[in-house]
Amino acid sequence: MGTARVVFDRWDGRYAERMSAIRSSAVRDLFAAASRPDIISLSGGMPEVSLVPTEAVARAAAAAIREHGTEALQYGSSEGRVQLREIIVELMAESGMRLKADDLIVTAGAQQALDLLAKIFIDPGDTIITEGPTYLGALQAFSAYQPNIVCIPMDDDGMRVDLLEAKLRELGPRGAKFIYTIPNFQNPAGVTLTPERRRKLVDLAREYDIPLIEDDPYGRLRFEGGHAKTLRALDEDVIYLGTTSKIFAPGLRLGWVAAPAPILAKLLLAKQAADLCGSAYAQVTAEKYFTGTRWRRVLQDLTRTYAERRDAMLEALAEHLPPEVRYTRPEGGFFVWVELPEFLDVKPLLAEAVEAGVTYVPGDAFFPDGRGRNCMRLAFCFAKPDDIREGVRRLAEVLEDRLELYRAFQAAGVLEGEAKSA
Amino acid sequence: MGTARVVFDRWDGRYAERMSAIRSSAVRDLFAAASRPDIISLSGGMPEVSLVPTEAVARAAAAAIREHGTEALQYGSSEGRVQLREIIVELMAESGMRLKADDLIVTAGAQQALDLLAKIFIDPGDTIITEGPTYLGALQAFSAYQPNIVCIPMDDDGMRVDLLEAKLRELGPRGAKFIYTIPNFQNPAGVTLTPERRRKLVDLAREYDIPLIEDDPYGRLRFEGGHAKTLRALDEDVIYLGTTSKIFAPGLRLGWVAAPAPILAKLLLAKQAADLCGSAYAQVTAEKYFTGTRWRRVLQDLTRTYAERRDAMLEALAEHLPPEVRYTRPEGGFFVWVELPEFLDVKPLLAEAVEAGVTYVPGDAFFPDGRGRNCMRLAFCFAKPDDIREGVRRLAEVLEDRLELYRAFQAAGVLEGEAKSA
Repeated sequence: MGTARVVFDRWDGRYAERMSAIRSSAVRDLFAAASRPDIISLSGGMPEVSLVPTEAVARAAAAAIREHGTEALQYGSSEGRVQLREIIVELMAESGMRLKADDLIVTAGAQQALDLLAKIFIDPGDTIITEGPTYLGALQAFSAYQPNIVCIPMDDDGMRVDLLEAKLRELGPRGAKFIYTIPNFQNPAGVTLTPERRRKLVDLAREYDIPLIEDDPYGRLRFEGGHAKTLRALDEDVIYLGTTSKIFAPGLRLGWVAAPAPILAKLLLAKQAADLCGSAYAQVTAEKYFTGTRWRRVLQDLTRTYAERRDAMLEALAEHLPPEVRYTRPEGGFFVWVELPEFLDVKPLLAEAVEAGVTYVPGDAFFPDGRGRNCMRLAFCFAKPDDIREGVRRLAEVLEDRLELYRAFQAAGVLEGEAKSA
Repeated sequence: MGTARVVFDRWDGRYAERMSAIRSSAVRDLFAAASRPDIISLSGGMPEVSLVPTEAVARAAAAAIREHGTEALQYGSSEGRVQLREIIVELMAESGMRLKADDLIVTAGAQQALDLLAKIFIDPGDTIITEGPTYLGALQAFSAYQPNIVCIPMDDDGMRVDLLEAKLRELGPRGAKFIYTIPNFQNPAGVTLTPERRRKLVDLAREYDIPLIEDDPYGRLRFEGGHAKTLRALDEDVIYLGTTSKIFAPGLRLGWVAAPAPILAKLLLAKQAADLCGSAYAQVTAEKYFTGTRWRRVLQDLTRTYAERRDAMLEALAEHLPPEVRYTRPEGGFFVWVELPEFLDVKPLLAEAVEAGVTYVPGDAFFPDGRGRNCMRLAFCFAKPDDIREGVRRLAEVLEDRLELYRAFQAAGVLEGEAKSA
């Protein structure tokens, strides 16, 4: 790829200022490393699409094209086909949300919705609020519009809404362009916002009159525990992002954004400028796939599979990781968040881990400001249970060397002083 | 759609400044009007995809999914599949351009490439140069980044490079972020840049050290006349945009941008932030479609069909339009540009035209500054020859009423004074 070559850049200094804010994806480079067959990837958040029956998709695709003929090949409407939007309305109704097909537009994955939302709301220097850590694709999308990103810490119950409230009080009404949250099985933290905090969050967004964006890619991948109402179910003004990537397949690039009419009109303008319209070809296929009941059995298979892998990971973490290491216990989704003693920086460790045959994503990728260096995201979605166990074992070995050093320093009283002076 | 509803906007005043610069597409509203069966659309630039054999695409889709299995369903690389990029390299080689698969990335139509280029180059207030008139989708994409758009006039030989040179002298070296041009069968003007001017244009871009963007959606749809070298064939630093929308089908949303490595690296970052990656599902289908020779026969059919429609339109224009009306004679592509006496504003005429059963795009949609009010774009790509003839006849009737008034004013000497004072 062109990025890898070192070339004299005739255009250096000619790019827009925003380009200094867009960071390359750490995950992307890892994908390359993780493609070596001897390496166990605990880094990429790729769904287990091998459970999606290729033959069923092939038949759905062919049938959809035959049935819709030129419509599947022509430019489509910028908001997306009404047939697909009606299917999405039903999906959302199953999760307790009431809306009409006109209340949403289809996007190229939820990622495009993040880009369009940033585009319509953010002027350089504007404050936006996210969880910390948060989805790195959201950081990439938002950063291109040069915001000031304020991160609200989380605990095992999701975003600390008490800290959010304190921050909002400081910023005042309309003091941020939006609040962005992933309430279910957060990426990367794996934690889920409690019902009480959900209520508080929508109340705060109302009180301080700030648009609230709910990103919910994993909502239907719950392994245990009760279903919590979405923010959109609590408040119709919540901007809700969904995707077919985790319940069907990311290869079609079909997501959506539901929003109040005035915001949706702006998003539609931005969408037209970005790509005119989405792929009618992908949309008719998805319509076919979501007609009938087969997809529900596939989704059950996916959920059961991810649950087994989550179990394998949690068991291996309990078995292999030393007691200084904290990690979350997700009730669904794809990720576990691992927190090491502050002394440790996991980024330089990554090369050692790859050497040992395992990958993870260093935690600082999920913060806008270099925090998270002592953390890592582990994905249990893609590797098989035995590989997950072996991967965690390899990872623990790499960590153990450093932790021994840490313990020695701690015993000598070196670290406390360092922590205070840092 | 949400846009049509009148709703109290809780978020009014909260959007980014750029949103006041993004205009709605005039064409979009016309698409709605043009869907009435009694109306002949000479407005939309939609390809005649009914000539693309649906059955062949259905088989290509099913075969591609069966062959590539989960790869077609999974996240893909941000630069696009190497198999498709190699096919694009061959397509470009057939048009006299030499490059490697690593020299391009696949985008969601060429429209996404326009958005990404604007994103990586334009800071608010930066000057960019386009033809005037120019592609309205480019104006939409660029405007979102708040540039100062300088339009260079055209004549029957394409962009007036002498006027470009004068403007560049005024702006100085690196005085614009880029020059954007559609050299072949320009949208909307229908004119083609001569070989001499192509040479001059790449020389000027070099001399003034300004990135040159060549948008070439219609290059392979030539009806007559010799093939002129692309700008990219003359200079490897030219940024070249291509699309499968006009040689295959827009419904897959597959285009590409070829650019020097440093620029491509920036585009890739912007692409990741915009949608992570393109649709592997659409890409494997396109790979199948472009393997073999059937697509070449389809392209010949398409070209012959458009040529017949162009002929029908030019004949009808010659027959029905009064002598005060000028229009271009495209050697390929989709569009004829019609210029009426300056006195006439065609925008308020559009309602009358729709009433009479024909649509066009008012010329001001193709300028950033309200110019072009006495012009219109007529598309001959989508209506059948008889409909084109009838559509032009209807249009001529609508125009005739106004032109009679114009002649009466002219006879009375009213207009000359008005033209001078304007």
